[in-house]
Amino acid sequence: MISIHWKPDKNSIVPLRRQIINYFTDKISKGQWPIGSIIPPQRDLARLFNVNRSTIVAALSELKSQGLIEGNGKSGTKIISSSILDLTKSQPDWQTYMREGIQIPNYKTIKTINDIEWDDKIIRLSSGEPSPELFPDGNMKKIVNKVSIDMNNLGYECPHGMYHLREEISKYLKAQNIDAAPSSILIVSGALQAIHLISIGLLQPGSSVFIEKPSYMYSLQILQTLGMRRLGIPMDHEGIMAKEIPKYVKKHRSSILYTIPNFQNPTGNVMSQERRKELIKICKEEKLPIIEDDVYRELWIDNPPPDSLKSLDKSGNVLYIGSMSKALSPGLRIGWIVGPDSVISHLADIKMQMDYGSSSLSQLTVAKWLSTGLYEEQVDFLRKELRIRRDIALNALNKYFSNMATWHIPQGGYYVWVKLKGKINMHKLFEEGCKSGVLLYPGYVYESNSNTNIRISYSYASHEDIEKGLHILSNIVQRLLHD
Amino acid sequence: MISIHWKPDKNSIVPLRRQIINYFTDKISKGQWPIGSIIPPQRDLARLFNVNRSTIVAALSELKSQGLIEGNGKSGTKIISSSILDLTKSQPDWQTYMREGIQIPNYKTIKTINDIEWDDKIIRLSSGEPSPELFPDGNMKKIVNKVSIDMNNLGYECPHGMYHLREEISKYLKAQNIDAAPSSILIVSGALQAIHLISIGLLQPGSSVFIEKPSYMYSLQILQTLGMRRLGIPMDHEGIMAKEIPKYVKKHRSSILYTIPNFQNPTGNVMSQERRKELIKICKEEKLPIIEDDVYRELWIDNPPPDSLKSLDKSGNVLYIGSMSKALSPGLRIGWIVGPDSVISHLADIKMQMDYGSSSLSQLTVAKWLSTGLYEEQVDFLRKELRIRRDIALNALNKYFSNMATWHIPQGGYYVWVKLKGKINMHKLFEEGCKSGVLLYPGYVYESNSNTNIRISYSYASHEDIEKGLHILSNIVQRLLHD
Ligand SMILES: Cc1ncc(COP(=O)(O)O)c(C=O)c1O
Ligand SMILES: Cc1ncc(COP(=O)(O)O)c(C=O)c1O
Repeated sequence: MISIHWKPDKNSIVPLRRQIINYFTDKISKGQWPIGSIIPPQRDLARLFNVNRSTIVAALSELKSQGLIEGNGKSGTKIISSSILDLTKSQPDWQTYMREGIQIPNYKTIKTINDIEWDDKIIRLSSGEPSPELFPDGNMKKIVNKVSIDMNNLGYECPHGMYHLREEISKYLKAQNIDAAPSSILIVSGALQAIHLISIGLLQPGSSVFIEKPSYMYSLQILQTLGMRRLGIPMDHEGIMAKEIPKYVKKHRSSILYTIPNFQNPTGNVMSQERRKELIKICKEEKLPIIEDDVYRELWIDNPPPDSLKSLDKSGNVLYIGSMSKALSPGLRIGWIVGPDSVISHLADIKMQMDYGSSSLSQLTVAKWLSTGLYEEQVDFLRKELRIRRDIALNALNKYFSNMATWHIPQGGYYVWVKLKGKINMHKLFEEGCKSGVLLYPGYVYESNSNTNIRISYSYASHEDIEKGLHILSNIVQRLLHD
Repeated sequence: MISIHWKPDKNSIVPLRRQIINYFTDKISKGQWPIGSIIPPQRDLARLFNVNRSTIVAALSELKSQGLIEGNGKSGTKIISSSILDLTKSQPDWQTYMREGIQIPNYKTIKTINDIEWDDKIIRLSSGEPSPELFPDGNMKKIVNKVSIDMNNLGYECPHGMYHLREEISKYLKAQNIDAAPSSILIVSGALQAIHLISIGLLQPGSSVFIEKPSYMYSLQILQTLGMRRLGIPMDHEGIMAKEIPKYVKKHRSSILYTIPNFQNPTGNVMSQERRKELIKICKEEKLPIIEDDVYRELWIDNPPPDSLKSLDKSGNVLYIGSMSKALSPGLRIGWIVGPDSVISHLADIKMQMDYGSSSLSQLTVAKWLSTGLYEEQVDFLRKELRIRRDIALNALNKYFSNMATWHIPQGGYYVWVKLKGKINMHKLFEEGCKSGVLLYPGYVYESNSNTNIRISYSYASHEDIEKGLHILSNIVQRLLHD
């Protein structure tokens, strides 16, 4: 049996599993652990490395798939080859396949966040989702139980999604002055999928998408992947500067506008009523379709935002996107698109081609939340809680950042967009944050060359952690400002 | 108030809603119903046309969105413009957007099936899903109720999907001699999404995908849309002709093989054990990756099929796809991909970019089906029922088609692949089937120039309807053979 005097580094951003794989590969390929050697049982390795058993299982599985080891944890795992090269000879060249695949990988920063935010101990000032503390545990149980009683066969759904859910959404939208029959509504698996469907359904390589600068859209790779261009249009405190649009339209054929009018991600900005009217008017004149991403609408803290662009749109210019993720629960993966019937049918056909529709269980559950009125109750609760959380974040910012940064007070949503007074190395800030156990989104994710902004989310971390996380960050920022 | 002496044609394949819209548009644009005229209330229209209220709501909504009418059903809807052209002036040119969007629409035949199969009265010899009669009503209720009790916060999941579900799938696969740690498994929203992810994650425009001829893959537009080629390789009774592969590989760089070894869609064919070994050997030599789509594995009627390609694969050549759709319920939208860890991580990243993961409710539900052992019970039940249904279909075929067609007896799965003895106009068969209330998939969906085959599914229609549907079809075929 091999003896091991090594431990993975828990403070590294390299995942534990990866560290273990690297260590083993190194030992084996250098011949330090010769072919035929027996590796200690999984349980012992877990104790030795002070990691979960599942991490060991994952690491050994990869070593197995590389052909380096064989056998299972119980009777002992044996080294059977000293070189991954042996295997590469017979394996497809996966690296090339992955590199050459059409879809561009996520930004490294986002990938890192996606991979490490599952660690319990980390403070997530990054996450755009309601905290587990805000999860409507009792009512969700009640509703899913009702669903279990009422449900029938869960077959493939019709292309637009479950009719009853579309009726409920239609009523719900009516209360927001949006007139949408069920046939004008498509159920999707969240707003992100809506963006995806619209992009592949209505745009082509070379198309241009006008977006706010900064915008959530900059954090996505979908347009790049498809050969489309993102064109940032400046914002002022009223929102995207609509009067700039005509000059862009003249230059770019086959384009569309994407906007987040309410509690914008990342700035928290709300588009004024005047600006909404102006935007609708200009886009109509320019025959420029609008994608209105309204996932944060419900999350106002002080006053409800103005009516949506969709409610002002009398000529079928606007594709309206909503979602259950931000106000109820992202794990349901339910959102919707509202638009002219013919466009919705076209997108429904494409949705069928991508995944044959969204989970029926999730659709039934969302329909019940709406029909019972419990959704309204949850949103009310959320608003009150978000006010408390926002104020905790603002207090902590005042306490720790007042000399180093400025920010606007968000009137709703999840985010404070903090602008540092000096330039720092944002990648370093992100990395040191990770090492100190605090996750945030650096501004460059939302605007390629921003090296002064960070997005702070107050929706996820606990009250204490918001304060603690900002304290830790302020120390790092201070240090980096002096570098 | 306008008076109407017209009814939609219930036997037409044009949806009722569309017929009503066309009728109204025609009347209005010809000035027969002048501006200012009042349209009868929705309830009256529904009675007059003998359609659901929801159909009227949908039709009026589209007319509204075209700017032809205004107001709601109660106080009376008014005609406000005589020409959709008026509106086109101010509306974006949606037709052009739709035509030029990247994604190719579904085949017209498939679109028609997707749109009309929701009609209760139609006999669905088309559907590749278990009949509502086979839905495990009691156990599904029990399990979803358990899920409601146990569940916690439904937040965004980690990129690979819920860990606990991956553990359960790992155990499940172990019983099938597939060694896959949770880190080698990616949860997806059904096998169709798996195909989508693999295509955009690992292939590029110009890539070639080798498939069986005929194959389910021919019914999808994803590869075409992405600029990839489908190359059909002939099958014999043992499955895809593996020895043909090397000569194709030489001609086509950056390629992958897609196969459905068990109860293939559409032929019902099972690949022999010998052929599996040969295929694995040849693909390894050629370094050709394999996508093994194994969604029908559980549905054997007579004997279990041979072990999967994945279980024979010692060098990480195979990406293995499974799904809950065929053996449990498609509305759950849960499937999985198994492959080398690095490839799975890459695909997980892409899945995050497409929809941030699959429904947590569905994931919890599937995990419970597996962990309680009730899944095995359901599959046992399904096998017995499929045997009965297959035999009903075979009897009816013997009775009505023995002079006109040949077929193999499927050993499992859902389909009989019926080969007509003469050539007929398949489009006509499909259309006349629709008109007579029987849906089927014509062979050309699975092999572009097939005008002799039809795919008959015995999984969905009731016992009586299988017999009745085949009877009706036989009359149509007979007529067309004589044309
Ligand atoms: C502006 C915006 N749109 C869409 C999404 C995606 O939401 P969903 O969970 O509905 O896909 C987010 C969440 O991060 C967002 O901030
Ligand atoms: C061979 C094959 N693969 C994949 C699918 C899609 O199944 P899912 O519902 O898991 O997306 C089907 C169903 O039609 C099929 O026949």
